[in-house]
Order: sequence, then structure tokens, then C-alpha cells
Amino acid sequence: MRYALLIQYDGTLFSGWQLQKKGERTVQGEMERAAREIFSVPTRVTASGRTDAGVHARGQVVTFDAETSIPCEKLPACFNAHLPPDLRALDCAAVPDDFDCTRHAKRKTYLYRAYFAPCDMPLFTRYAARLKGRPDVEKMKEAAALLCGAHDFKAFSSSGSSAKTTVREIYKIDVRKTENGHTMYEIEVTGNGFLYNMVRIIAGELFAVGCGKPTQNMERALETGERSLLAKTMPAAGLTLECVDYGVPLFGNGLEE
Amino acid sequence: MRYALLIQYDGTLFSGWQLQKKGERTVQGEMERAAREIFSVPTRVTASGRTDAGVHARGQVVTFDAETSIPCEKLPACFNAHLPPDLRALDCAAVPDDFDCTRHAKRKTYLYRAYFAPCDMPLFTRYAARLKGRPDVEKMKEAAALLCGAHDFKAFSSSGSSAKTTVREIYKIDVRKTENGHTMYEIEVTGNGFLYNMVRIIAGELFAVGCGKPTQNMERALETGERSLLAKTMPAAGLTLECVDYGVPLFGNGLEE
Repeated sequence: MRYALLIQYDGTLFSGWQLQKKGERTVQGEMERAAREIFSVPTRVTASGRTDAGVHARGQVVTFDAETSIPCEKLPACFNAHLPPDLRALDCAAVPDDFDCTRHAKRKTYLYRAYFAPCDMPLFTRYAARLKGRPDVEKMKEAAALLCGAHDFKAFSSSGSSAKTTVREIYKIDVRKTENGHTMYEIEVTGNGFLYNMVRIIAGELFAVGCGKPTQNMERALETGERSLLAKTMPAAGLTLECVDYGVPLFGNGLEE
Repeated sequence: MRYALLIQYDGTLFSGWQLQKKGERTVQGEMERAAREIFSVPTRVTASGRTDAGVHARGQVVTFDAETSIPCEKLPACFNAHLPPDLRALDCAAVPDDFDCTRHAKRKTYLYRAYFAPCDMPLFTRYAARLKGRPDVEKMKEAAALLCGAHDFKAFSSSGSSAKTTVREIYKIDVRKTENGHTMYEIEVTGNGFLYNMVRIIAGELFAVGCGKPTQNMERALETGERSLLAKTMPAAGLTLECVDYGVPLFGNGLEE
């Protein structure tokens, strides 16, 4: 039987999703260790997509195959008994045997958070990056609109990407300012998929535009694929994988969006 | 010369504000160590009030006396060079020699945050407590209104409090629900001062009322001073000292509210 699990993690102390050499603490490593402890056999756990070291996930979707008499609704608690506190299983669903959580993902939403302050703020550094200027949200929204739609995002990816095509479609970019004692700038991006570091590069360029950089660089980058026209990749801590959408709801607990 | 510093800290890894026996990591201990390193003499650092182990501060105000040629506006960066990353000096002001940051505080604002979920959520546990039910915010608001004004809050304090009087005035309690991927319940309390654990007990009782407990218990507790009529003290992680108000702005950087 194939199962899908909805998981959440604080990425701060993980070397990303993907298994690494021994000694590196990864989300996949912790999930597969927990699965082996529960099912007593080595169990491969696959994610909708990798997240980098330090990147958080509010609603990552993973799958595994298991023969077990444990009812589906009990599986999250079973996993949680074997997982560290910074990684939690929130929900579980039985899925068809041919369900592929990577290839069947229709839309993914990422959130990038940043704030302006003269020094790092201890209450924000864990989940947000610090900006060196106050960006103009209206300018950021105008630039974001230029990125929506299907484009070749080659310039918006770090080398090392093994993707066959660098064309992706962005459905929506929401730029907003929230106030909770301190102004937080949020960029929420929904698309059919993302290249390596793509959201962090988009965020960096939108913040740069908000602080006065002309949008022409971004437009030329879309045309030419030149990475060097764009701002630096933003730090991992500000990025959260919010949710993965398969076109139909997988889970029934209302924790998905 | 007496100086006031605006500081922020993530309380997770501190045993509270106040100096403890050796080996305990406290905010005061870190501040006094930094001050001694900067000014080369032992320097007492006093806060507007203690915060307990695990409690955060977005805008705590502390004072110290120093003879130094370092300009006031450079002092935050000097402190930050000697402080750990979970504790930061945000601003500094010279104040009159008789300024007493504890006794001259006119109003303090605390924020308590909590969420409902079937298990601890890795992205929220650091700054919020988990509830076992979904509270009704309207009921919480009605109960909060009964606490506003001057009352004897004896029942709303933990034993061990050395306060001479247990009468305090609450100016405002704001109860609200925020949505950022997951519902967060926030209780913001402003008053002229607070007894030991008072905000955490208020929060616990308001959440209990929101989940169906009759407000009569709270009303009787106000009359009789009986702690046992009220819900359990909420965990420290959900509590943040937001700001301290001295009637006049001490700092000029706009980071105060």
C-alpha cells in the first residue's frame, strides 16, 4: 500500500531534504529512519521536491510504500513517536499505487519573508532574512507581474540544476507587507514547479527592485538567461515551502490550503 | 552617565532575565558580561522587569551607568559585537541619572500566542503554545473585558511573588485571530504592571473560557483571590514582552511602538 504523509519541518538544523553522506542530518534521513523503526524494513521515502539546507516546510508531501496493519489515521502519531521535535507528520492518506508525489504535483507555493532593521533581530532571524533597505511594495508588485506566466527562468537558477527544461509557469506572486510589531515583507509564489534556488533568486531581485534597481535587468535576464543580471540568492532561512497541490485534496484535516 | 538600551531576545535558550547561579545562561548575565568587556569595569545592568525562563522580549528596556567616550548611537553595535545572536541591542539613549527603568515604567505590553493542532507544529512551537481545542474568540473577548480596569489580581499570580500589593490595572486586552497559513490566537495585554506569571495565567483562563469554561470562575477568582479557580499557567514559549512605555519616547529609531 502506498501512503502520502503531510509533514512540517523547521529547516534550521537540517542539511535539506535529500539524503547526504553519513553524519549529515537530513529530513529524508530522519523520515526513513522513523519508517524503518515503525515497519521493521528499510523504507524509501520520496518528497514532492527537495528543499535546501535551512529551508522550512509548512506542508511538504511525501510518500512511502508499506505493508502494515496500522490504520492510516494512526500513522502520523506513529511517525511522531520516532521523529525529532523539529519534524512532524501532520496527516496521512492512502493513495493509489501509481501516485507519484513528485511528478503529479500540479502547483507548489513558497513563501519568502524578510524585514528591514539595522541589525539582525533575534525574534525574526529564524524564519526571515534581513534587508539593508526598506523596499517599495508597489514597485515589487509591478516587477512580480512581469514574472507571472510561462517563461524560460534559466537566469533565475543556480548552476548545478539538472532540469531538462528551464521553462516554468508562475501562476501568482503575491507581495505584501504584514505588521506584527515589526514590518515583514512577504513574497508568496505559486507555480507549476521551480528550478534550483529559483524562489530565492526571484525574492532577491524583487527586493532589489523595491529598493530602486530598474526592472530592465530582470526583463533582460528573462530574455537572455544571464544569471549575473540578477541580485544575489537570498538566504535559506527566509524560505518556506507552504503547500503542494495535486489538483485534488489528499488529506482531510483542513491543514492543507 | 546613565544609558537606556532597547534590547530584543529569543528567550528559548535563556534561564530568564535575572542572574542565577553559575552555569545558568541569563539575559542579565550576558548583558553584564558584554558591558564589562566594553567598559573594562564591572557594570550592573537593570531591566524594566524580569522575564522568566523561555519568555521572549521584542522591546525590553534596560539601563546601566558608564563613563565612556563612545557616542551613544555607537553603543548598540558595540554591545552586539559582544552579545550572542539570540540577544541584540537595537537602540540606545542617554537618560537622566535618576531615571529608573523599573519604577518609571508606565505601561507594559505582553503578547501571548497559541494555536490549535493535533500535534506540536515545528514552525510554531518556538513562539507559541499549542491548544487542545479551538477557542471561541468572541467568548474570550467578553471575558477579557471583565479583567480590564484596576483589580486585585492575587488569584492570577503564582506563589513566590514578593509584590507588596496584588492590585494592578489592565488598560487593554486585545484578543484576535491571525491567519498565516495556520490560525494563531493572540492575546495582547497592556497594563501598569504584572504579577509573577500573571499574563500566562490570564492567557490560560481566557483560552479555557474560549473552549467552554464558564466565566463565573474567573469572576469568583477576582473576588476571592483563589488561584485554584483558574486554569493552568500557560507555557513560557508563547509569551513575549512587546514594549515598555515610559510616557515619553526614549528612543528615536521608530522600533518602539
